[in-house]
This record gives sequence, C-alpha cells and structure tokens, in this order.
Amino acid sequence: MPDKPSLRSLTKITQEAMSEVNKVILDRLQSDVALIPQLAGHLISAGGKRLRPMLCIAASMAINKNNVAPPKSALYLAASVEFIHNATLLHDDVIDSSDQRRGNKTANAIWGNEASVLVGDFLFARAFELMVETNDIWILEKLSAASAQITEGEVKQMSMLGQPDSPISDYFSVIKGKTGVLFAAAAQTGSKVGNGGDELNSCFHQYGLALGNAFQIMDDALDYGASTKQIGKDLGDDFAEMKITLPIILAWQDSNNTERDFWLRTLKQGNQTEADFDKACSIINKYNCIERSLDYAEAEANKAIEAISNIPNIELREALVETARFAALRDN
Amino acid sequence: MPDKPSLRSLTKITQEAMSEVNKVILDRLQSDVALIPQLAGHLISAGGKRLRPMLCIAASMAINKNNVAPPKSALYLAASVEFIHNATLLHDDVIDSSDQRRGNKTANAIWGNEASVLVGDFLFARAFELMVETNDIWILEKLSAASAQITEGEVKQMSMLGQPDSPISDYFSVIKGKTGVLFAAAAQTGSKVGNGGDELNSCFHQYGLALGNAFQIMDDALDYGASTKQIGKDLGDDFAEMKITLPIILAWQDSNNTERDFWLRTLKQGNQTEADFDKACSIINKYNCIERSLDYAEAEANKAIEAISNIPNIELREALVETARFAALRDN
Repeated sequence: MPDKPSLRSLTKITQEAMSEVNKVILDRLQSDVALIPQLAGHLISAGGKRLRPMLCIAASMAINKNNVAPPKSALYLAASVEFIHNATLLHDDVIDSSDQRRGNKTANAIWGNEASVLVGDFLFARAFELMVETNDIWILEKLSAASAQITEGEVKQMSMLGQPDSPISDYFSVIKGKTGVLFAAAAQTGSKVGNGGDELNSCFHQYGLALGNAFQIMDDALDYGASTKQIGKDLGDDFAEMKITLPIILAWQDSNNTERDFWLRTLKQGNQTEADFDKACSIINKYNCIERSLDYAEAEANKAIEAISNIPNIELREALVETARFAALRDN
Repeated sequence: MPDKPSLRSLTKITQEAMSEVNKVILDRLQSDVALIPQLAGHLISAGGKRLRPMLCIAASMAINKNNVAPPKSALYLAASVEFIHNATLLHDDVIDSSDQRRGNKTANAIWGNEASVLVGDFLFARAFELMVETNDIWILEKLSAASAQITEGEVKQMSMLGQPDSPISDYFSVIKGKTGVLFAAAAQTGSKVGNGGDELNSCFHQYGLALGNAFQIMDDALDYGASTKQIGKDLGDDFAEMKITLPIILAWQDSNNTERDFWLRTLKQGNQTEADFDKACSIINKYNCIERSLDYAEAEANKAIEAISNIPNIELREALVETARFAALRDN
C-alpha cells in the first residue's frame, strides 16, 4: 500500500533553495525600527508550511528535466510571496480579533492591533521591494493584481458574514480571492523566472489556483471537525465569527425550517450559546456536508493535477501531484 | 504688498492634468465588491489638497520651459501616489480610533475598522498596479522603498508615544518617514517620467522631502493652536493621543521640574483631565515653542526652494517656491 500523500517529496526537492529563501526572509525583515523585526519575526519564524514560496521555487525548477538550483530571482520572488501572505495574516488576525495562530499567541494579542496593522503594511511594501529585484515588469503586474484581488476576496467575505443563504459561487469567488490567486501568482511567476515560457506559466497558474482552492476548502471543512488531528487551530472559529463557508452553505440548502431558524439565530443574529457549535456540527453531519465539501476539494485537486500533466521535470511533477492529493486528503 | 503665499499658482498650472488624474482615481477605485468603491470613495472624494499628486504632475512638467501637458504615465503615477497616501490615512484612522477627518466622519467610524484595514490594503495594491503601468522599474523601486519607509516612520512614531524626552532627531526621522519620503518619491518619480534626467530628479527628491517635512511640522504645530482658522481638525488630538511632536519636545527641554511632572502625567501615564490641554498650550507658549517650531518649518521650506533654483520651467519654479512658502506660512 502506498504511503499517504504528504508534502515530503516537494519539501525535499525545494529544501536547498528554501533554506536560501529563509535567509532572504530574515534579512529583509530587518529595520532600524526594532519593533518591526520583532513582531514580523514572531509570525514568520513560527513557520507554517511555507507552501506559497515552496510552490514558487518548485515552478521555477519545472522546465529542466533534472532538478537544477533555481535562479536568484526565484528566491526573492518566493520571499516576496511569503511576505504578502504574512501581511494578510497579520491584518486578518486584527480583523478577526484572533489571539491564537499556529498554536502561538497572535502578534496583535502581544503588541496590539495598531502595530500589527503597520507591520502588515511594512511586509507588503517589502514584498514589492523584493519583487522589484526580479527586474521583471510582468511579474510585478501579476503580483500587484493578485494583491488587489486578495483584498477584494477578503472584503467580499466580510460582506457575506451572517448570510448562510449565499450561493456556492459566492463562496468560490471568496476563496479564489483570499487564497487561490496568491497560489496562482506564486506558481505562475515562479515558472516565469525559471524561463518557463507562456504555456508552462499558464499551466502553473491553473495548478496554483486549483491547489489554493483545495487547501482553503479543506481548511474550512476542518473548522467543523473534518479531522481530529489538527493542531493550533480551534474548532468552531468560523462559526463563532459568523463566517459563511462551504459546509454552512451546503447545510443551509438542505435544512428544514427549524434548522434554518437555527442558522439565522446563530449566524445572522449572532446569538450563540455554548451548545450551538455541536448542534451546528450535527446538522452539517446529518446532510453529509463535510464529505461533500471534501468532494469539492478533490475536484480542485484533480484540476491541479491535470494542469501540470506535461511539465518536463518528472520527479517534480510527481511531487506536485502528491501535493495536490495531500491538499484534498481526507482525515489528514 | 504681495498676496499671501497660497497653492493657487500650482493648482492653476496642474489643473488640467489633475482633472485627468481624478478620472484615473475614480476609474481605479472600481471593484465588483461594492463596499470598496463606497468606502474608498468616501475618503478620496472628500478631497484634501491633493498635494502629492499635484507635486508629481508639477515635477513631470519641469523640464520644458513652457507648460506642456504631462505624459500619460505621470497621470497613473500621480493617482498611484494619492492611493498610497489614502491607504495610510485609512490605516491611521483605525490606529488612532479617529472619528473625524477633513470635517467628515471617518470611514472606520461608518464602516468599521475591519473594512478600513482591508480597503487600505486594496488601495495600496491598486497603487502598485498603477505604478506598473508606467513600465519603469526605477519608479517601482523608489515607490516601494518609500512605502516601506512610511510604515517604519509610523511604527517609530508609535514607539515614541509618551516619551516627551525624545531627541529632536527622532522627531525628524518620524516625519521624514511618515510624510517626507512620499512627497520626495512623488516629486522625484514625476520628474523621471517627465524625462528630467538624474540631476533634476535628485533636485525634486530634495524639494519633495523638505516640502513634506515643512507641511508636517506645520500640521503638528497647528494641533496646538498655531492658527485659529483651521477647519476639520480638532485641536489637541495629538495631545490626547500622547503623540510626541516638535512643540512638546521643545517644551520638555525648557520645562522646570513641576512642568516635567505635568508632561509625564499627561503624556507618559496618559492621565489627562479637561483642563490639561490649555495648561499644555500655556507651557508651550511660555517657552515660545510654536514660533520655534515654525522656524524649523521655514528652514525646511528654504531648503525646498534652494533645491529647485535651477529648474527650466520658470513659471512652475515660481509656483513651487510659493508652495514652499505656503507650507511654512505663519497664521495660514
């Protein structure tokens, strides 16, 4: 029986370059204003999977049949993408008033919202400085457009708060913005600095978009207990914040009138008691909405795999296929 | 007797181009997510002096002896600079919990902090999209570096809160970051798209930096009642927020022990009563700190005037001299 899909192969192929990327990240966090590297370092050093920069590095290595070290501009680009991601995390934690991320206290819980907003802005500006070093206007165009779309996705998510009767298409437009487009831009621009050519760049755009969507759908399903093994994220955060994610939209569509009254009370009026999260999970399970969410994630993963079926580097292709399978893995 | 210095001449020279800039601004505020143009439009349409884009346009017109319409890329650049400025205003109002700006309710007071943070991010991203359209990496380099320095200035300002014994050099480093560098980048990059050449670009950098500093010093002095004619800004905001500005630093340096105890109670411990702002003004006036702040503003204005003494467009040069005099105008 084959091993369960994981990030191991991708991590291994990109490992050497990623240790260079980490050096760039630490170097560019520096500032004469001491609070900036302190606060940003707290978040960035805490880790996370570094998926976006890893994808960027991988894409830059796709054109060669063998694994050749990526060009220096790929390192800057990967660091830039990680900075954009962390800028959005800092701002998200302010917006959600979160006090925990990846099992640690959030920056806003330690240093306050003001500092988190400003250091997020700093990371965003530094991200653009790093991009400029690639000396490629096309890359700046793709990443600045992606940055605008990320905020549009976040604002749209905010506009949907408390509306469980939202259509599935709205949910997909939110996750495309808040997650898909940055994965897509990371992969596409990585391919470009690796001299991928138009067709390969476009394949990586599709791969990144579908992969990002799959990860986000999974993340949203995990918040209603798709797996018991998760660490560092509290179950029920989305429910408490009245966020409308795929399990909720699917459950609303099948709910009877009594159940719809429950959703309206808890998610629209925000009138929640302690027992309500369990009740929400039981309605979600009654209509099989976690499984059905994971079907959507799997469909995205399959799109991702399809998109890269012709890339020259076979070992990398297999690692990217495995990454997509991992993104949609049940009970991961 | 000559008229009092004003922005009239600069406004007149840049008027036609600025109406094109306003069209670009309105066009690029659009988004499928309705809240974005609503919120951003509330702030941007409320006006303000549009100093930064006007300076950018002016600099792009400096190389020709006569006033020739600036190139299209100057319009994008000017809009971009105004977007960056408004992004920082949105975030500042969240950070200061302000509910009034330019005589209107702030965006955060109407739509909440969350939306203001995200729409600020959106404007920042759109600013980079606009810059990309100038197709000039040098410009992107200057403006991304300026953006990082702005946030460094803001974080440094935050680190100085409640410390009236800060050195004047720290104050100058804060205002350079939060105001000077964006004026400098607007002027310098404007000159570049107008084919200014290295020397002219550098003159405009110096002009913008000194002009921005002069405006900020004046703004900080106005907060302690340098003029009675101001509209849309409450006196004493900086004092209430325990911000350390030039009048405070100067007053602290001359204060006796009793007065220092007053500063420590009100600005360090934040223990303020209703009568304290008048008391603060009376110590500031006792040591002539407003006048002395305005001397600093005048010195910056003179530096600005000196920097552009050789630009080819004489009519524009005179308008820029008048603008600098206006920035340091007593009782304006």
